[in-house]
Amino acid sequence: MNLLLLSNSSSDAGYLVHALPDIRELIDTLPPGSPAVFVPFAGVTRGWDDYTALVASALADTGLSIEGLHCAEDPVVALENAAVIIVGGGNTFNLLGQLRRQGLLDVVKRRVRAGAAYLGWSAGSNLTCPTICTTNDMPITDPGGFDALDLITFQINPHYTNAHPPGHRGETRAQRLAEFCALNPAMPVLGLPEGSGLRVRGQQLELIGPYDAPLFLGHEEPRVFRPGPLKIPA
Amino acid sequence: MNLLLLSNSSSDAGYLVHALPDIRELIDTLPPGSPAVFVPFAGVTRGWDDYTALVASALADTGLSIEGLHCAEDPVVALENAAVIIVGGGNTFNLLGQLRRQGLLDVVKRRVRAGAAYLGWSAGSNLTCPTICTTNDMPITDPGGFDALDLITFQINPHYTNAHPPGHRGETRAQRLAEFCALNPAMPVLGLPEGSGLRVRGQQLELIGPYDAPLFLGHEEPRVFRPGPLKIPA
Repeated sequence: MNLLLLSNSSSDAGYLVHALPDIRELIDTLPPGSPAVFVPFAGVTRGWDDYTALVASALADTGLSIEGLHCAEDPVVALENAAVIIVGGGNTFNLLGQLRRQGLLDVVKRRVRAGAAYLGWSAGSNLTCPTICTTNDMPITDPGGFDALDLITFQINPHYTNAHPPGHRGETRAQRLAEFCALNPAMPVLGLPEGSGLRVRGQQLELIGPYDAPLFLGHEEPRVFRPGPLKIPA
Repeated sequence: MNLLLLSNSSSDAGYLVHALPDIRELIDTLPPGSPAVFVPFAGVTRGWDDYTALVASALADTGLSIEGLHCAEDPVVALENAAVIIVGGGNTFNLLGQLRRQGLLDVVKRRVRAGAAYLGWSAGSNLTCPTICTTNDMPITDPGGFDALDLITFQINPHYTNAHPPGHRGETRAQRLAEFCALNPAMPVLGLPEGSGLRVRGQQLELIGPYDAPLFLGHEEPRVFRPGPLKIPA
């Protein structure tokens, strides 16, 4: 498999700019003009046409030919033909619910397992996990089950931070993840800070970006990984 | 109906201390020693025995006789006999899933509709809404459907704040609620700030505490309510 899973899309540098070198590396074996499908279903307040245009513009220099999945005459055929599947962020529940209801979840999974490159950020990174149980998003719609693409063997928590607005009495991120780990003691969760990403090449994992990332597992103290090759406990 | 729905439990003053005058008013017609059931199922990292002891201690001066629902020989009988049902915060998905799987959701609903007083905070306030779709909690377990007690006709977002850790690229709370409103344009959402609560007496609503609270509805600008009587648009 060939995945690039980003924590976030935007930074002070612009939309996806911080990730462009890694995106180029993800697709470096593909010929110019290779077909890519963009899945905009995590967009809720952002229209799918606008979202697709934003992403196509941000990735214009990559040479990919990007089509919005919602525009495809036959979405299954579009996914079958895609050399790259790009899944944007937004609301993870809406993303998963749309893919499930449209019968496209298994098509994406099969295509990526067969070698299509996968680029995701935020909700698009959550989607590759066994479940969406470690999303930060509000459950604005029932996705008909929390099972997701199950392309990686562990969970990701994107936009990882343990910062907390002053005076706030709600749970911190670490507390929320501790709750997940209490109910799912054998499932690791990688907290991906803003600006970080996970690169998956076959069975090899690499933490990319400048920041350390904590791994939560059961009741253990979080283990902190430096950028570079990453080995997740089985 | 007779409900007191709090945004949060703890403050600098101590556990539930800020809400004690309102809790006393909620139960002021009940004789001393009235039976109360505490529902600890939102607790995940907090054990249910410890959680029940914490709440019983915080409410000791109210004179209620408080039993943890998880300790009841017959939970249905315990709920049938309870003059007050108390539902604590924690994880809303765990709370709803436990009540649903144990077949207790409809019992709670029927009892409160029949006149049992209801005290809830955070997840316990979310539970009274039509759905749990406006919780802030992480979806650490699938509750088997998002439908909840449906005791009030609108949604609550507890711990409401639009503050945001600096540099964070995830959604703000207002953005998350705008996503809910985009998918559910006819459903109002009341943002309850820390220290605020909602008092329901029959059909009458009152915003309690010192703070203003925003109401989100569809694409309209949020309408801000002052503490006092509250009228939610139909």
